[in-house]
Amino acid sequence: MIRLEGMKLYDGGRAPNPRRVQIFMAEKDLEIDRVQVDIAKLEQKSPEFTQINPLQRLPVLVLDDGTTIAETVAICRYLEELYPDPPLMGVDAKDRAIVEMWQRRVEFGFLLPVAFAFRHQHPGAATLESPQVSEWAEVNRPKAREFMEFLDGELASRRFIAGERFTIADISAYVAYRFLKPGRIPAPEDLAHLQRWYGEVAARPSVQETAHV
Amino acid sequence: MIRLEGMKLYDGGRAPNPRRVQIFMAEKDLEIDRVQVDIAKLEQKSPEFTQINPLQRLPVLVLDDGTTIAETVAICRYLEELYPDPPLMGVDAKDRAIVEMWQRRVEFGFLLPVAFAFRHQHPGAATLESPQVSEWAEVNRPKAREFMEFLDGELASRRFIAGERFTIADISAYVAYRFLKPGRIPAPEDLAHLQRWYGEVAARPSVQETAHV
Repeated sequence: MIRLEGMKLYDGGRAPNPRRVQIFMAEKDLEIDRVQVDIAKLEQKSPEFTQINPLQRLPVLVLDDGTTIAETVAICRYLEELYPDPPLMGVDAKDRAIVEMWQRRVEFGFLLPVAFAFRHQHPGAATLESPQVSEWAEVNRPKAREFMEFLDGELASRRFIAGERFTIADISAYVAYRFLKPGRIPAPEDLAHLQRWYGEVAARPSVQETAHV
Repeated sequence: MIRLEGMKLYDGGRAPNPRRVQIFMAEKDLEIDRVQVDIAKLEQKSPEFTQINPLQRLPVLVLDDGTTIAETVAICRYLEELYPDPPLMGVDAKDRAIVEMWQRRVEFGFLLPVAFAFRHQHPGAATLESPQVSEWAEVNRPKAREFMEFLDGELASRRFIAGERFTIADISAYVAYRFLKPGRIPAPEDLAHLQRWYGEVAARPSVQETAHV
């Protein structure tokens, strides 16, 4: 376990983006002092937190010199540069480009549609997303399903999403998959390769250790 | 001018993502053999192009070993690693994290809302986005405006979006700004700092040289 002294992570519990950083850190066995910000209580919209991130989003990493790094993937990239092992964002220029391609495909094709399906229709998301556009939630469910079918085909020929190595693209896809239920999207039990991949990712110590029960 | 032999760029003309890569390359004075794919004719949905990118999006970079790199920012990151000067994605771990934070804020807070406003209401986008959700276009216009007000406040105290240096975050914000009109979002003529920034970016040779007239 490596403890990063002087930094502070504003964490947000079980929400998808905080979870992504938690898994990323667990893979590298990193620990940072945390401040819990309760999204259910809308603490991210408090005047205190708005000073830290005017966009009122979590997580946020504050460095020892006071520099604020918001945005999940920016936080991950910073930690990856400081602690490259195990590599979660690629090992050379070409590999890093391939990981980034898959990371973005997963974000735009899977995580975003699932988040929209949740945020625009779930009663519990009414305070997060205003106005909720119910039709937009409905339009996104088949988009998420279509992307899962695409992923299933890709996972027929390799172990993880961006290749034979576990990467940030798998982390993003895992949190999207876990968010299917709140998004009221049926679990893709008929997609055998995706199921095989999901079982393997869910069993990783980094995922187990960061589970919110 | 540096010509990258053996690579091939599937370009898409004046659409925002192809334009981002064009400006990025012009800043570094790079040239790559191009294949023009006509989005107006939906050539990105042809069986030939679907073989190259199953997600039917542009641009795509194909390397000399046949590796396909889709996704604008993945292409930019690859070119940045090969040709780091001038740096457009940060100069050290902390700076790269800050650039990534701003690049993502701009993408999710500005480019995406403007794109949604266009794709979900413009008659010319009906073949690109199906179904169009008119209410979703309407909801995104005030989101884009709100983000521009946030950017305006940030640009009061520094020259470019991620600091004193021009970066990929400025490129993304520039193409979003240029797309306000197709998205039927009023130009923010009242936001003086944003106007100052826009004028400066629009005058750059990389932007002028890649203008589609």
